Parts: sequence; structure tokens; C-alpha cells
Amino acid sequence: MAEMVNVAVDAMGGDNAPFEIVKGAVEAINEDKRVRVFLVGKEPVIREELKKYTYNEEQLEVVHAEEIIETGEPPVMAIRTKKNSSIVKALYLVKEGKCDAFVSAGSTGAVLVGGQVIVGRIRGVERPPLAPIIPNAGGVSLLLDCGANVDARPSQLLQFAKMGSIYMESVLGVRNPKVGLVNIGVEEEKGNALTKETYPLLQNCPEINFVGNVEARDIPEGVADVLVCEAFAGNIVLKMLEGVSGVLVKKIKAGMMSSLRSKIGALLVKPALKQTLKAFSTEEYGGAPLLGLNGLVVKTHGSSKAIEVRHSILQCIAFKEQNINEKIKEQIVLED
Amino acid sequence: MAEMVNVAVDAMGGDNAPFEIVKGAVEAINEDKRVRVFLVGKEPVIREELKKYTYNEEQLEVVHAEEIIETGEPPVMAIRTKKNSSIVKALYLVKEGKCDAFVSAGSTGAVLVGGQVIVGRIRGVERPPLAPIIPNAGGVSLLLDCGANVDARPSQLLQFAKMGSIYMESVLGVRNPKVGLVNIGVEEEKGNALTKETYPLLQNCPEINFVGNVEARDIPEGVADVLVCEAFAGNIVLKMLEGVSGVLVKKIKAGMMSSLRSKIGALLVKPALKQTLKAFSTEEYGGAPLLGLNGLVVKTHGSSKAIEVRHSILQCIAFKEQNINEKIKEQIVLED
Repeated sequence: MAEMVNVAVDAMGGDNAPFEIVKGAVEAINEDKRVRVFLVGKEPVIREELKKYTYNEEQLEVVHAEEIIETGEPPVMAIRTKKNSSIVKALYLVKEGKCDAFVSAGSTGAVLVGGQVIVGRIRGVERPPLAPIIPNAGGVSLLLDCGANVDARPSQLLQFAKMGSIYMESVLGVRNPKVGLVNIGVEEEKGNALTKETYPLLQNCPEINFVGNVEARDIPEGVADVLVCEAFAGNIVLKMLEGVSGVLVKKIKAGMMSSLRSKIGALLVKPALKQTLKAFSTEEYGGAPLLGLNGLVVKTHGSSKAIEVRHSILQCIAFKEQNINEKIKEQIVLED
Repeated sequence: MAEMVNVAVDAMGGDNAPFEIVKGAVEAINEDKRVRVFLVGKEPVIREELKKYTYNEEQLEVVHAEEIIETGEPPVMAIRTKKNSSIVKALYLVKEGKCDAFVSAGSTGAVLVGGQVIVGRIRGVERPPLAPIIPNAGGVSLLLDCGANVDARPSQLLQFAKMGSIYMESVLGVRNPKVGLVNIGVEEEKGNALTKETYPLLQNCPEINFVGNVEARDIPEGVADVLVCEAFAGNIVLKMLEGVSGVLVKKIKAGMMSSLRSKIGALLVKPALKQTLKAFSTEEYGGAPLLGLNGLVVKTHGSSKAIEVRHSILQCIAFKEQNINEKIKEQIVLED
């Protein structure tokens, strides 16, 4: 039998903790025998939640953590002072090798800072990118970096491209993933200083399938599987995707309610529409991995429900079984 | 009687030239007696098009231009060498004071470069921003800069905020327009070096109504009337808006065609939906002004139809009658 994949889960993080988190964790272990979940947080609260479910007890442990890091807290200070928080204790489980991965819907800042400070970077990785999976017309793309550190260097973007390609190929099963550089025009000479310097690095990298510059207009069409950019740009891409979808769907729904005729039509199109919109929601896909750490750290939406928590836990299986970090180490060492 | 507003129009620019351009020009003069249009381009072609319409001949002149600048041409070279192009000749009409404004659906690069080189900047204006009007949930916002020059300085972003506020208030009639700084978080300390340095400049500027940082997610909600950013970020905002809307609408339409039930529903919701989507299309609003020049230069979509050309021409009336450039001069001189 293959080794178990041990996943630490922040039971106290996110808007719907602990209910949806515990539910998602139970769903994950009930779905896949290879996963063991360590629910980290206030033990009495977690135990109370767990009473609602039946599951294989060998696949679940509870690790008590007295404190909670709130979303608004300054991340560096929180990681430093709240040693008994669910995030810090869970990250130590990864650092000490008891867990392979950590999943949290809690404070993005604390997860990013804690991941780097406690779990630590793979040697040679300059900056670990936060890489959400975003929907496009025909499937999904990996967008990196969307983290907290802006103004990346070209060498960092090259590493993002390599790590993103490995993740897309090994975890999401996209063969020879197309790598695009997010830019303001498709021509090689377009862009700012960063993209102009990064372009030749990507073009001359034999480990990736570089398809050139990608304009934001073409991102939703799915012209690239791996979208490389620094975090300020990545943040705008991600949040415009969420914002435009949200407003458009709201407006369409309101439009459909504007007359009796359209109200009747709305009832008829509703099931088909729901299906379509579900496929285009950023919440339908597992969490965003923070790549390049000595272990896997996955950040899911603060508003995550059980389904996203479950997806996030299950994606850790492929991450371990496909030896993602070994592959990253090989490619990063190769370049030194 | 008030003075006429003279608008030079590039009859040869854009995907639908000359047909839609000439049509839009005729519609504009038929709609408003205050406008005189100078159609610049190949005279025989323009005259042939004009035969289709009836209009007041005193409101229309044709200015012959033998050459055309194509979209793919390097802008600086094109402006320098094609002296007899419609773009260059039209820009000279503005420079020489024969026209107040220039409207083109042609090469964005050539219009931007030509506007600066031929018409010239207002004294004190560091960089003229291209400022498209974008739809939001409740109305429109002005997004600047979306031009070709990236990596702006904080002082330039401050000028964008002032010029954008004047335009929004005087041309679009938004009183005391809310100015937002496009950023990756709402807190003052968030962002990159540029936004961090720009924030206090905007906060301490008495001429504008600064509402703080704006996350991309909230842009489509319409949290600010004037959105300030450098051109790389602005380009991503604009093109994600276009791209996400386009893909989502396509997917919704396809979803509606997926079953007989939803097809019938689609027929019923179609009129209401069309209305909704029209309000959220970037093509429904006039062109993007290039602000801060000694005259008004307006760039409309390359795919512009008559309606957008008409809107673009008519928005020049308010620009002149409201003395936008006088107001810009006052505020820019004030700061020196």
C-alpha cells in the first residue's frame, strides 16, 4: 500500500470555520483512503463538529491550538507572537515532516508569511509564488504570482514559469502546458522593463513551452495554461475576473427579472445557466498552492465551503505522489 | 449663437472605415447644429460615401489625405514619414487651431504619438493619459492611464487624477467625482512602490475627491468615478473587463442552447438580456480622450461602428464648451 498523504487543515480559518472546514475534511477522507487529515484548532469545538459525521477514525487526528490569527492582523507580527495559533501549529507539522501539506482558508498574509518563515523555501527558490487556478472558456489556467510581494525580478518570473509548468503537468494533468507572459501586447518588444527582460529568459528556457506574450483580453479565452506575471498584475487579473463575473451575473439576473416574459424565460434557462456559471466560478477549483516551499501550503478562499476545502485537501495527493517538490528541486538546481 | 465646435475625423481609420465613420459623422451633424466635421481622408472615397446621406453642407468639409497609416506600422516612424496620412493631416488641423478636436478609430499608437508630437502637451503636463470610459454596475468610470507609456511616476498619477476629475465632472456631468487609486488592497500601506508614493499625493490634493485605494474586484461595482493607475495596470483592467465579459456572454449563450427547455427560455429572456449586456459593453460609450494636449484627441475602438463615432464626435462639444483645457491649465499651473 502506498504511503498516506498527511494534510494539516486549519480548522479555525475562514468565514465558515469550523463548520464547513470540518465538513470538507470529513468528505475528503471519506472520498479517498490515501488521505489522513490533521484538524488543527480548538479541540473541544472540533470534536463537537465531528460528532455530526461518520468516518474512518484512523484517517483523522485533532491537534489542539488555543489561538486564532484573525484576517486583519499584521501577518509578520501574528506569526511571531501567536505560537499557539492553528496556522503556526499546522505549519510546524509540515516543517517537522509530520504532514506533507497544509490547507487554510484563514488570513492570506499569515499563511504566506508563515509558509516562508516556518516551512521555508526550497534551496534556490528566490520567491514562492501563490498560484490560484482560474477558469477560462475551455478549462483552467494557473496564474502566478498572486502573492503579497510585488515588483518581482525577471529571474523570479522564470522560476514561476518552471514551477507553474510542473504543477500544471503533474497535478492537473495538462501535458506540455503552454506558458504565457502577461503583457499589454503580444509583440516581443511590448511591455514594461520587467516583461521586456523576462521575455528572452522564457524564450530560451528549454524546460518550458513558452507561447509568448498574452494580452489580458485573451486570458479568459484560455490561450495559456500557465500565466506568468508579478503579483501586482496577477492580483488585478484575478480580481477583475471575480469582479466582472460577479457584476455581470448580478446584472443578467436583474435583467431577467425586469418583465413577466423574461421571468418565465429565466425559470426555463436557470438550470443550464447555473451549470455554465458554476464552471466559470473561481470558487469551484481547489485552493491556490504556494509553490517552492519544503512542503505544500494551499490557501483557499476565505469564503470557502466544504466543497473547496475537500478539493484543496485532495489536490495534495497528486502533489505528493507526483513528487512535485523533487521536480522543482531538480529544475531549480539545474539552473544554478 | 455659440461658436461652432470643429471636429476633424479620420475617415480612413478603423476596421469599418470609411463606411461607418462617414455614417457616424453625418449622424453627429444631423443630431447637433453646434458641430462641424472635417472628414479627413481620400476625397473621392469620402465623397462617394457622402452621396448616401442628406445633411447640412455647412457642417461638413472634406480634407483630402492621400496616405493611410496602418495599424501594424511602428507609430513613431509612421507619424514622421506619412505626412499626407489622414491622421497626420487631421492632427495638424488641431495644431493650427482650425479644429478643436480629432477623432480616430485608427492606429492607437499613431494617434498617441501624433497627438503628443504634433498637437503637443499643455505646458506643465508631464504625460497625457489615454482615458477610456468603462461601464460599471451603476454607470461608468474613467480609467486612466491606458496609454502606451508604462511605469509612470507618482507626480504623473496625481496629474491623471486631476485631469480625470475635470473630465468626469465637466464632460460626463458627475459632480465631485470619486477618485480611486487602483491597488492590490484597500489599506493605505498596500501596493507597490508607485502606489505607496502616490497615495499621500492624492490624499493631500485639495482639488480632487480621493476615496482611497480601490481593489480590482470592486472596479466593476463602480466604487470610483475616476480610476487612477499606470498604463500597464490600466491595460490589464480594461482588457480583463472586455475579455471576461466576452467569454461569459458566449458561455451563457451556449449554455442556453444546451436543451430544448433552455432554448425556449432563451427566446423569452433575449430582449431583457440584450438591454443588460448593451449597458455593460465597452463599445457603447464614446471614445477614449487623450487628456492634457493643446486640443482634444479622441481614440475610439478600431471596431467602432457609426454609433460610437457619433458619440465620440458629440462628446467634443462639452469638452470645448466646458473649457476643459482651461481648467486643466489652471490646475496644472497651480501646482507648479
